Parts: sequence; structure tokens; C-alpha cells
Amino acid sequence: MEIAHPYLLFLGDVPDALAAKTGLGIVDWRRDWCIGQHRLDGCKADAKLPEMSPQDAAKAGARTMVIGAVNAGGVLPDHWVASIVAALDAGMDVASGLHMRLGAVPAIREAAERNGRKLFDVRHSDMRFDTGKGTKRSGKRLLTVGTDCSVGKKYCALTLEQAMRDKGFDADFRATGQTGVFISGRGVALDAVIADFISGAAEWISPAADENHWDLVEGQGSLFHPSFAGVTLGLLHGSQPDAFVVCHEPTRTNMRGVKTPLPTIQQVIDMTVALGKLTNPDIRCVGISINTVALDEAEARKLLADTEAEYGLPATDPVRFGCEGIVERIAAEFGKP
Amino acid sequence: MEIAHPYLLFLGDVPDALAAKTGLGIVDWRRDWCIGQHRLDGCKADAKLPEMSPQDAAKAGARTMVIGAVNAGGVLPDHWVASIVAALDAGMDVASGLHMRLGAVPAIREAAERNGRKLFDVRHSDMRFDTGKGTKRSGKRLLTVGTDCSVGKKYCALTLEQAMRDKGFDADFRATGQTGVFISGRGVALDAVIADFISGAAEWISPAADENHWDLVEGQGSLFHPSFAGVTLGLLHGSQPDAFVVCHEPTRTNMRGVKTPLPTIQQVIDMTVALGKLTNPDIRCVGISINTVALDEAEARKLLADTEAEYGLPATDPVRFGCEGIVERIAAEFGKP
Repeated sequence: MEIAHPYLLFLGDVPDALAAKTGLGIVDWRRDWCIGQHRLDGCKADAKLPEMSPQDAAKAGARTMVIGAVNAGGVLPDHWVASIVAALDAGMDVASGLHMRLGAVPAIREAAERNGRKLFDVRHSDMRFDTGKGTKRSGKRLLTVGTDCSVGKKYCALTLEQAMRDKGFDADFRATGQTGVFISGRGVALDAVIADFISGAAEWISPAADENHWDLVEGQGSLFHPSFAGVTLGLLHGSQPDAFVVCHEPTRTNMRGVKTPLPTIQQVIDMTVALGKLTNPDIRCVGISINTVALDEAEARKLLADTEAEYGLPATDPVRFGCEGIVERIAAEFGKP
Repeated sequence: MEIAHPYLLFLGDVPDALAAKTGLGIVDWRRDWCIGQHRLDGCKADAKLPEMSPQDAAKAGARTMVIGAVNAGGVLPDHWVASIVAALDAGMDVASGLHMRLGAVPAIREAAERNGRKLFDVRHSDMRFDTGKGTKRSGKRLLTVGTDCSVGKKYCALTLEQAMRDKGFDADFRATGQTGVFISGRGVALDAVIADFISGAAEWISPAADENHWDLVEGQGSLFHPSFAGVTLGLLHGSQPDAFVVCHEPTRTNMRGVKTPLPTIQQVIDMTVALGKLTNPDIRCVGISINTVALDEAEARKLLADTEAEYGLPATDPVRFGCEGIVERIAAEFGKP
């Protein structure tokens, strides 16, 4: 599955920016893939892109309209259908991360067939994966893991991709969630895969590669999250990382959405090594990524320095301060490009 | 989902007993639910039940025809369709564990609609589960875990159900795989659930109950199996067991289907406690179940005695020697009924 860019972002008429976080995340990381935005009356989200109709976007070269917003309940509202049909009629593919399949709406399915265009439902995998094999593959892999969900695992992997490429590494971000799939134009939303095939899908996402190639695999959930740890473990086993970075949000007290307390960074390091060595005996932690958005700069720098001292590992907020320290650690442990 | 019994077992024309292991497993555990078998010419599997046509079985009171055999590739062969339609026309429901949905065959779907009968595809869950919450529920739970797949986890849980009921415990087997679903008439094939909902489905399978009620939850996979550990962990977190039994097959050297070496029983105990305490801090091992079918009786008894001495836990082959020792341990640790 390769989603063709440039994209037109469809933001619908969502009531706030949070409901458009998929679209805004795409713009954060792939501004040059985004040719414009298409919004309906009353839309309160704004990706600061040129406003365009599907017809104008297609004329300007857009190849896919991405549904970058989500309605309450994840359903596709009836009044969004006309825009989707218009995009298909204008010759674009349409991609969505909604729970509901685009093709479940007859008007959309018919428009796709009529125009010979593709519908991408990244939350529904029609791919058949093998079960995981656990066999060591060539190439190198880094996985971002977390003390919790939504602590910056995707942003850490994306920042590392840029920083490693800047230093001459051959490195690719590997998406495992819907926003990541739109950002990279490929990948698999692992949470939507049938349970038996989680690790097999993770193996498919990070296939055998050149010995010096790095896959930077977007992590999911947490081994300590009672809702999603199964996905996290399947991803850990399937991606067989040589290196991992622990991502953390220091102001959180409970795991997201449940009453379970947060593990310590050390617990996450120890459990990731204990479980990860099943498919990669040399797995090791190469850094700590902390989301410091709730701290002022002095507080953030102190926390990062304290964390470095406590764990003997580079610690950074990749979005705020970059991640050169982690890249240096990777070069020191595994060799320069 | 409750599958109504008595059952008529459909064994098709499979070439050997292994291809009918679902049907034979049902007879092993629920002989009194099975009113007869329906076989096609050339069938080499035999559940030793009276031969019956769907019409005769329905007249004798059968309420569901269970597809108890699997063709190569898990597909539904065209020449099985007539028997399935005949069962529906005779007034029975039909249940299947094949990968392919029964309703994907137009003649079967139409016959079900025409007769107002149900089609159960236990490998496809149409149920919507919540994500797991990790909150402690009332009632007690035991999970069978394994050093590998196919080491007797289902049989151990079923034997424990019988032995605990015999001692006056209020105990129910809880199915998490397709054969288990047919044996208990309910449950969820966890390997077919969408990855995000593994632990949520496990919570649904073993709901809040009376404080002295025991759910005996069928385990899946192994925390040390690189293909399926994610399912195993989601089941462990969702079922939040108070007690677990480690199941083991002593002649195996590699994990089933892969090249990964087998863990030790102690590794499985330690990892199950380390991970399981996230949702049940009091989790503990209450016994070891060993499949001794490859050993003669003297060898089997010696291995079990050695294992008891090594781990300080009751060890048995539940099918060969019963599991009273484990039930005594449960009574000693958690109270008699």
C-alpha cells in the first residue's frame, strides 16, 4: 500500500484542532506533500494551507485527498460524502483513518469504481500477513517504546529519521499507526490487524535490508498499559530492534484512559530488554525522549540533565531540542554511516 | 454468542483424524452434547458417533451442525455446501471454525435467511469489544499458560473445571479458542479479534462474578513464542488471573512452527508473574501440567515427581493422572468451596 502524494487535506467541519490532529500531524512532518486544505462551513481546525476545492487541488497536482479529521464516534457524516465523491470524480484517490470503511458508503464506492480510483482505509487492513517467524533479519532497527500511550513515540522516530539522514545514515521511518501511515505514505495501522498476525505484520513493516540500513519503527502503546500491551509486545517481537528509545511524559500520573499507575523509565528499559531479547539478544536502550511541553525551558533542561545522569543515557525532548545526542550514541554503539 | 446443543458433527471427507481434531475434541469433552456425525464418502476421520443425515439429526433433536473438520487451507470446499444447506433447511443453526465465513457462500447465506437460522463463524468476531480497562473485577480466575503453543492448556483448564466441580467449587471453563468455544457453547476465539481489543475481549470472557466463583480461562500461545506472545500478553492482562498453571510438553526442543528454543518452566513462571501483576498484584503459580503422552507410565511418574520437587508445586498430567493436587493447592491458597 503506497498512498500517492501530493495530498489535499480534508478537514470537514470539525469543532476544534484536536479533531483534526491527523491532518495537522501530516502538515507538521510533510508540509511539502500538502498542496492545500478543503474545509466545510464552520470548520474550526486550520492547517494553514491554501483553501482549495477538490477540483482545483486535482488541477494543481494533488493525487490523494486525505480525510485528516475525525467526527465524534469515528463515523463518516453524510454531509462529508459529497466532498469525497467530488475528489474521486476529480481523479484523486481518497484515504481515511476512520473506523468506518469508505467503501461502505455506496455513493463513494460507486464513484471510486466509476473513476478507477483507490480508497485507502488505513484502519482496516485487507492485507494477509504471515504469522511472525522470529528469525533474525539483516539490517538494523530502532523501536520507540513508551511509559504510556501518546508520549511522543511517533515524533521521536520521525525526528530521528531526519537527524540520522542529516548525519549521512541510511534511515527510514516505519509507520505503525494511522497518522504515521499518512506521513510516510505507507505502513500498517497495527492496532487494526487481527491479533494472530501482530508480530507478522511488524516483520513485514521492517523487512530484511542492507546491513547498514536503519528502520526507525514507530512504537505503539506500552508494555505496562493494560489495554494495549499485547500490541506493544507483538511489535517488539516482530520489529526485533537492535536499539530502542524510551519515550515519557513527565506530568502524567496514570496510564492514559485507565487507572493503572505509570511505570518508571527503568521498569520500561528492563522489561523491554527482558522481552525483546527473544528475537534480538543484543537489544539495548540508546536514549530517553521526554515530552517537556508542560515545562519551561529551564525546567526542561534540568529534567533532561537529571535524567541523563540517572540513567547514563542521552535524554532529550526531540521536538524542542533535537536528538543529536541519541544519534551520537547510535553511531558510537553501532558504527557511523 | 451461545451455540445451542445438541450438536450434529459434520466431518466432511477429510483424509485423516488430525483434520477433524475440532470435532474429536468436542466428543472428548462433550460426548453428551453430540447426537451424531455426518460424513461424506471417503471420510477417514471417525468420532464414533451414530451416522446421521442432517434431517435425521434434526428430528432427533440436534440444534446445531458444527463443522468439526478443516480442509487443507481452511477453505470451505464446494462439495460441503449441500450438507450445510440441508442442515439449515432441516432447522438447525450451523457453526464453523473455518477461516472463510459461512455467509460468504451465497447458497448458505440464502438458506440461513430463508429458514431464519444462525450462522456462527467462531474465527470471525463481529462483536464490538471495549478496549481493556485493567480494573480489578470480583470473582476468582485461573489462567493456563504455556512454555509453547499446543501443550495442553485447553485440556488442563477443562480437566480442572471437572475436578473443581467434583470438589464443590463453583467453576466454569472459559473458552478463548475455536474448539473451546464449541466445547463450552460460548466464548471468543481471541486470535481472531482485532489487536486493539485483545485484553478487552479477555475481560469480556471472564466478567465480574461472585467472590467464590472461579473462571478457568483457556490460555493461548506463550509469552516466549515470537508469533503469538502479543495475544498471550493481552489475555494475561485481560483475564487478570489470581492463579495460573504452567503447561509443558517435555519432548519438544523448539517452539512450534519457529526456530526459537523453548523457555524453561521457571522462566515462564517468572515472566507470567512479572507481567501479570500489572492487573493482579497477587498473581501466583499453583501448579504445572505436563503432557506425558510420549512417556511410559514409570517415566511419566518420575518426571512429575522430579518436577514437583524442583518447583515446590503440584505437577501432573491432567488427562492421564487427573489434577487433584492442583485443586488441593487452590483450596489451600484461596479457600475451600
